[in-house]
Parts: sequence; structure tokens; C-alpha cells
Amino acid sequence: MTIGVYGLGRFGSFFAGELAKGNARVIASSRSSHEAPEGVEIRPLEEVLNADYLFFAVTISSFEKVLEKLGGMIGRHTVVLDTCSVKTYPAKWMEKHLDKDIYKIATHPMFGPDSGRNGIEGLPLVMCPVSRIDERYNAIKEYFLSLKLNVLEMTERQHDAEAAYSQGVTHFVGRVLSEMGLKPTEIATEGYKSLMTIVDQTCNDPLQLFYDLQRFNPYAKEMRLTLQVAVEKILNRLAEEEERS
Amino acid sequence: MTIGVYGLGRFGSFFAGELAKGNARVIASSRSSHEAPEGVEIRPLEEVLNADYLFFAVTISSFEKVLEKLGGMIGRHTVVLDTCSVKTYPAKWMEKHLDKDIYKIATHPMFGPDSGRNGIEGLPLVMCPVSRIDERYNAIKEYFLSLKLNVLEMTERQHDAEAAYSQGVTHFVGRVLSEMGLKPTEIATEGYKSLMTIVDQTCNDPLQLFYDLQRFNPYAKEMRLTLQVAVEKILNRLAEEEERS
Repeated sequence: MTIGVYGLGRFGSFFAGELAKGNARVIASSRSSHEAPEGVEIRPLEEVLNADYLFFAVTISSFEKVLEKLGGMIGRHTVVLDTCSVKTYPAKWMEKHLDKDIYKIATHPMFGPDSGRNGIEGLPLVMCPVSRIDERYNAIKEYFLSLKLNVLEMTERQHDAEAAYSQGVTHFVGRVLSEMGLKPTEIATEGYKSLMTIVDQTCNDPLQLFYDLQRFNPYAKEMRLTLQVAVEKILNRLAEEEERS
Repeated sequence: MTIGVYGLGRFGSFFAGELAKGNARVIASSRSSHEAPEGVEIRPLEEVLNADYLFFAVTISSFEKVLEKLGGMIGRHTVVLDTCSVKTYPAKWMEKHLDKDIYKIATHPMFGPDSGRNGIEGLPLVMCPVSRIDERYNAIKEYFLSLKLNVLEMTERQHDAEAAYSQGVTHFVGRVLSEMGLKPTEIATEGYKSLMTIVDQTCNDPLQLFYDLQRFNPYAKEMRLTLQVAVEKILNRLAEEEERS
């Protein structure tokens, strides 16, 4: 099995390196002159687009344009998978811009170079079948399992609804706290230390990922409204409490 | 050395038990019929108020009234210490309501039954001298050090300024996230798991502590405004980003 990875940014490079730890041959291509991760061969674009499995590791906001540009060059036998952190739109874009004969799977590897620093064993990877499930789906699922990933299967909407209120809210809170300019302090409580970890983790990811998570998750706007309402409620309760005393 | 603890609520009970692990005799009194923690003797109020050192472990909002009520019964030789999570007001209240001959120290043990679950070694305890430092201050400082606490000395205002932007913001975020009704999910990222930890930790503390931290820290209002401004900035930046695309 040959796996192609298109895009060797921060995440793509890490992911390709992890894929290469399994039994497949991993080849990659990237617009920029990134270095190849260990175990990954840099090959011409045409070859990567004709691998048995082809992962796109590009930003959510660029994915549709990448598909428009490269869709016609992808082998008809090639299974196409995205790795975006939202799933509803990317799945739609694949259906819209790729030939109907091309087999499509939407995935979200829920880890990156930070959370996967000490290995990806046990970390979640979400699979959303776009084409009807057959042996091609099962083969790559087995491959993920061989890497000891925690494979979770669900619809794109289920993923996005849950992700908005977990990954989405975490990134939002991380960016807000970073904007506040919070600093380490010697009187840090254990809780504050956890809070600082979240700032570090989320703000270590590219800013574009944050924007894309908020913009392309159909449930993110509702999540942000829920957060704003919760802030208001807590502030009102503090005001009432102060008045009562 | 006999140490008295007034108030055996969730924190006071835990703190008295930890104090009893040192070389002193620890006696306690409480309004309610709490059970005595291991190593702590329940003694009549009068005796507790005449111990060598007397810790008040009561809610911030009740501390001034407790001082008004009991101040006159405290031994002139007794060193009085509060344990409130804010320091500026409690120090002022001790100066206002206790005889000027009574030696006063403001402290903030920055741990509780949750964060100190596996022992309090290395956890921070803040000391703010209220009376002029002498051997009475040094003796209890040595006692804290014998419990392997990380003793930090600063002024009340320094403490409150730093606590508002660490402990204060953590509790605020924890209450907001709890209000949002966030739940565990199988697609939880590592960051989201940390966020859930914060909700658990902060909301396990009494709601009154949250109100008091926000109300009686002179820097908390500014912190909350800074947080609100940060939320607005991030939301505006998202809107601009969306318009640009």
C-alpha cells in the first residue's frame, strides 16, 4: 500500500511521519520546500496524487481551492481522505469537486505535534464515511488501528456538533486568555497551571486553524453565543450577589 | 506550640488535618457539628481562641462579622492568622477589629482538599506580615516550612493583583464553562480534557468562595473587564477575517 500526503505544514509533516511508522510506503508532496519527515519520501506531485490512498493535509480554508485545482489530476483508483478539523464542509467539497468514481473518506486525526509529542497511541481519529463503506474504507481503518489509534466512526454533523463544544471552545478560550496576556506566577494554583497549558497548546497551533475552526464548523457560532450568554449570566449573578449583601 | 483552628468547613477541616501532621498540638472549634479531622482535638471555643496561634478558616464574606463577634475573646498573647483567598480586605479587617496588641499575620494557603489530595508538599502558601515581623512570625513560618510548603512572602496588594489574574480568572472561566453545560465526549482533545479538569476543580469548591473571590479582590473587577474586552476582540477579529475571505 502506498500512501500519499499532500501538504507538509506543521500538522501534515507530523502526520506523514506517524503514518510512515506503519507498514505502508509513505510519499509526500508540498507546495513549499519543506523537509521530509523521517520515513517519508518526497516524490513528484503526479505520483503522490496517484497513490493508493491520498491524504490532504492543508488548511480548511484552502481545501476547496486545492480540490478545484488538483481534483482532475487524482487517479480514479485513488482513495481521497481529508484531515480537516471540521467535517461537514470538507466532505461536501470532496463530493462537489471530485469525480463521483473517486472513493472518499473524511477523517479528523485529533492530535498534532504537541498532543502527539509522546506518541499517538490511544489518541482519537475520527472517520466519517463519505462514499459507501467497502473494503477500501476497512483497509485504511485497519491501518489506523495498526498505529494503535482510537478510531471513532460518526457522521460529519455528529463530529462537528461535538467538536464545536470541545475542541472549538478550548481554542476559543485559549485565544481569549492569550489576548488577556496572562503570565506564569509563583502563586499559581494547580487550576491556573492547567489553564496556562491550554493557552500554550492552542496558541502553538497556527492562527489560521483557529479562524477556520470557528468559521467552517456549522455549530461554532452557536457555541460562541452560548459562551457569551454564559459570561453574561455569571456576571449578572455576581452583580445580584453583591446587591444582596 | 498549640495551634487553634476556628471553622471546620471543607477547607478548614482539610487544613487543620494537615497542620496536625507537624509537631504542634492542633485544636479546633466550629459552629456546626463537624467531625474532627485526624490528629485534631475538638475543644471549647474559649480554649481555641486562646491558643498560641489561631487560624480563622471561614468564608471571606463572613470573616469581618466573625472578628467583630469573637475579637474581644481572643487571648492577648495569641497570634491571629486568616486563611482567606484574598488578602487586602481581611488584613484591614484584622487591624480594625482586633486589639492593637494582638499579633496579626495574613496568610493564603493556596491549596485545598482537591489540589492537596496527594499531599501538600511543595504547594504554595502566601504570608503577608500585618504586624511587624518578629520571632512569632518566624516561628509559624518555620512550621509551614516543616510541612514542606512553598512559603511565599509578599504584600496583600501584590497577592491580590496576581491572584485576580491567576486563581480569579481560573474560577471565572470554570464557572462560565460549567454554565455552558460542557460534557465529556469521546472526541475530546487533550486540551479539552484539561479544560474539563478546570471545570471540575473550580466547581467542586463552594459557590460562596467564587462570589467572594470576585467581590473581595480589589483587582477582580478589572480582571473581568479585561476578560470581556478580550472576548470582544477575538469575536471582532473572527468577523473581520470572515469579511476578508
